[in-house]
Amino acid sequence: MKIGLDIMGGDFAPEAVVLGAIESYQFLSPDQKLVLIGNQEIARKIIRDNHFDENCFEYVHTTEVIGMAEHPTKAIAQKPSSSIGIGFQLLKEGKIDSFASAGNTGAMLVGAMFSVKAIPSVIRPAIAGIVPKLKGGCGIILDVGANADCKPDVLVQFGILGSLMAESLYDIDQPKVGLINIGEEKEKGNLLCQATFPLMAENKQFNFVGNIEGRDLFTDQADVFVCDGFTGNVVLKLAENFYDITLKKGMRDEFFDRFNYEQYGGSPILGVNAPVIIGHGISNPEAIKSMVLLSKNTVESGLIEKIKKAFL
Amino acid sequence: MKIGLDIMGGDFAPEAVVLGAIESYQFLSPDQKLVLIGNQEIARKIIRDNHFDENCFEYVHTTEVIGMAEHPTKAIAQKPSSSIGIGFQLLKEGKIDSFASAGNTGAMLVGAMFSVKAIPSVIRPAIAGIVPKLKGGCGIILDVGANADCKPDVLVQFGILGSLMAESLYDIDQPKVGLINIGEEKEKGNLLCQATFPLMAENKQFNFVGNIEGRDLFTDQADVFVCDGFTGNVVLKLAENFYDITLKKGMRDEFFDRFNYEQYGGSPILGVNAPVIIGHGISNPEAIKSMVLLSKNTVESGLIEKIKKAFL
Repeated sequence: MKIGLDIMGGDFAPEAVVLGAIESYQFLSPDQKLVLIGNQEIARKIIRDNHFDENCFEYVHTTEVIGMAEHPTKAIAQKPSSSIGIGFQLLKEGKIDSFASAGNTGAMLVGAMFSVKAIPSVIRPAIAGIVPKLKGGCGIILDVGANADCKPDVLVQFGILGSLMAESLYDIDQPKVGLINIGEEKEKGNLLCQATFPLMAENKQFNFVGNIEGRDLFTDQADVFVCDGFTGNVVLKLAENFYDITLKKGMRDEFFDRFNYEQYGGSPILGVNAPVIIGHGISNPEAIKSMVLLSKNTVESGLIEKIKKAFL
Repeated sequence: MKIGLDIMGGDFAPEAVVLGAIESYQFLSPDQKLVLIGNQEIARKIIRDNHFDENCFEYVHTTEVIGMAEHPTKAIAQKPSSSIGIGFQLLKEGKIDSFASAGNTGAMLVGAMFSVKAIPSVIRPAIAGIVPKLKGGCGIILDVGANADCKPDVLVQFGILGSLMAESLYDIDQPKVGLINIGEEKEKGNLLCQATFPLMAENKQFNFVGNIEGRDLFTDQADVFVCDGFTGNVVLKLAENFYDITLKKGMRDEFFDRFNYEQYGGSPILGVNAPVIIGHGISNPEAIKSMVLLSKNTVESGLIEKIKKAFL
């Protein structure tokens, strides 16, 4: 297995990313190789400076970097030799089995769509966010930003994608899939939810448990929380906001601590033909380590193959 | 001034509502009369049992009650003699100057629309939610549930309504109005936000400060947070959820404490021809007292007249 990692992506790249790669090394078996994509000299220097063995990793040297604020489509088109551009090239050619970056989220999404592409019959791939649940374990929210506007059939597919992810990556048997809505009854909600509810209820590919209100997020009412990317993004950022507030106030708590993005390793893009993980821009080495392990787990679990099969 | 209060509405009515009325009495001047609408015998008995003077209040006896789970439109049509039905009748006839209830939210909204009606040119009245801000004071989110689906011109009007409310009820000079969105840049967001941004930017009736992300709610970036009723409801319930979690965990904090709905007194319906306040279903006497005082402040501030003028 070859795990591709963009060492130029993220607010603290390349230092934090290379340090994260070093931290993750001990969790990889000999046949699992981490491929560092980016400026090779810098990477090797950081590794040497930290008294680690350069030969533990493979390297693909790249010369360009897509900045965090660059326009995604333009950047992907104009910088094919960037670490993100080369990463997706390698992924498309099967030279790496997964690709992860804490860099420009939009460029990661556009890069994935242009290179490995959406799985046939998947209308719109989604970015899956991971949140802790009050009683332990974690829940999946999707979409958290890839598709600000969604149609009902797209939300139904998010149910399938999220359910397979919960099963494959978090060993949840028959994951409960809920629809984020503003009332419990099936006729409640905006036009999108009203049209989506009956389609989810009749779908046989996942275990639909009905509407979930804002007050019931983080409970065990569902394992997968489906919504359009606008709602998901607002919800996720608001949750992070609360976590940050508790941190700043020194309010330590087991549940709030589990909002710490570092341990989740990032957000997979679900519905494309290969494992792609987007890390948080502010990723530190710990977060990068988690991202590498999430990449490994995604490949090992065969999630992508399961999704392809579900959409045959 | 006559402040109408539905004593039959809310999970703990009529006991909690009448007790709240008693608590509010000391904050009213002699010319401010609280009109208790509901079962008169029960009201008088609770007042006597609490050794308070029955003559401090006015009474309008009603015989029917709209339950918390009843279908709003049906209930309003079929129970004209309910406390909510009679309350709106009195409000329409000018026999009370404001009407407040912690009962069925939908029935309050439908009742307001059918009786005092929307102000001409207001396309869709909104329910305004009140949230604390980190650095003190409070922010207004609207809509929080009256309109699950909104058009851009409706959101622009929410900006006007929220701005006038912030100015009138919270003495905020030139309130900052933000659009809840999933990116800071003006071209970001779903189709609704993309179409709304330029309309808000060119509007001269309020101080538009641009997009506000989920991570920036509760900050001083804005005083008024505009969104459709679906987003607002999810956000508000999620915020309440976090507050409840901190409460259950015994994590006391000045900021989180200010999420306590009891002190805000409920959510005004903005854009109708008279002051209407919807209280939280679980209102205790403290919350009811706040609802009475919010009613009083709304009448005194002339908010409704200001809104009518803005929409002339």
